[in-house]
Amino acid sequence: MDVFEAIKERRSYRSFLPEEISEKTIEKILEAAIWAPSPLNTQPWEFIVVTKKDVKGKIFSEAERCIKWSLEKSGWKWLENYQANFLQSAPVIIAVIGDPKKTGVDMFLEEGGVGYQHACAAAIQNMHLAAHALGLGSLWFTFFDKKAMREILGIDPNKTPLAIVCLGKPSGEPIQTRRKDMKEKTTYIR
Amino acid sequence: MDVFEAIKERRSYRSFLPEEISEKTIEKILEAAIWAPSPLNTQPWEFIVVTKKDVKGKIFSEAERCIKWSLEKSGWKWLENYQANFLQSAPVIIAVIGDPKKTGVDMFLEEGGVGYQHACAAAIQNMHLAAHALGLGSLWFTFFDKKAMREILGIDPNKTPLAIVCLGKPSGEPIQTRRKDMKEKTTYIR
Repeated sequence: MDVFEAIKERRSYRSFLPEEISEKTIEKILEAAIWAPSPLNTQPWEFIVVTKKDVKGKIFSEAERCIKWSLEKSGWKWLENYQANFLQSAPVIIAVIGDPKKTGVDMFLEEGGVGYQHACAAAIQNMHLAAHALGLGSLWFTFFDKKAMREILGIDPNKTPLAIVCLGKPSGEPIQTRRKDMKEKTTYIR
Repeated sequence: MDVFEAIKERRSYRSFLPEEISEKTIEKILEAAIWAPSPLNTQPWEFIVVTKKDVKGKIFSEAERCIKWSLEKSGWKWLENYQANFLQSAPVIIAVIGDPKKTGVDMFLEEGGVGYQHACAAAIQNMHLAAHALGLGSLWFTFFDKKAMREILGIDPNKTPLAIVCLGKPSGEPIQTRRKDMKEKTTYIR
């Protein structure tokens, strides 16, 4: 698939068919991830591929808890209807973990480094594009508490779970979103 | 260009030909940027396209200052030889600015939201892939102080300059980097 087509046509999905995803397909998606750039080529990413039902169930419960917390904090009514069932129905979910020690010189900043997070986000974008090109739907999910996710997945306390990428054959239509015109977002200094 | 080819063959360049980049090409790259996903489709990105020589000069001076500071802080000897001349030689540099108010529910977290930064990083990755597909070299550059960059580019103090993307026809070879095998980075829970 053409790269511009993949970039423009990729959409988020929250509904997946139960059909299994082959290990070969998962590897293609992760191979795309690791070719993202990173500060000083530190490659700060790690991936946990979850297909085990009860672990997906724990992640789902954590998301439910987090959505409830968010509703209380935000008062955003739409959260009342937000269902995270796709965490259980997606045949594969991949946790993307970042290592704060593998960041650039921003590690010396008082507020701490974020370069490793940016690199992981670039890797996640590659995963979405790869998934789309392979005919899969995907979702970038972050409704969870880091500490809780570390416990569920047995992640080193010094590393940061940044996102869950849900993957599967799409069931139904993607979430349709619009974009503001690029020109509204751009200023020229010439 | 095939999306997997773009992902795997993209490299960072620090040397550019002076040849101008057309506005149409710049727009194609920014059009790729805005199709990145973002929390609640907040589209937290803004772009400042700089071609003006003296403004690129100011950014170069800020980078030199920041590299010196980093050398003192880190003691990393290789920084002594790090030249940021490409900030002046690249025909186009694009500052990517994020709006911290346009983040997801992580805005209610005590440590503040980072979702908007992740979305901007995904947009930056799209820019790199688009640039590569269009035959351009690119670089993700972050050696600057946010406050200084706000002053140089006249950025709202409530917004965050996250990166400078350098763009131009490549001069010479890209920076060759390797990757650890994807399998070393991956754990399965099944």
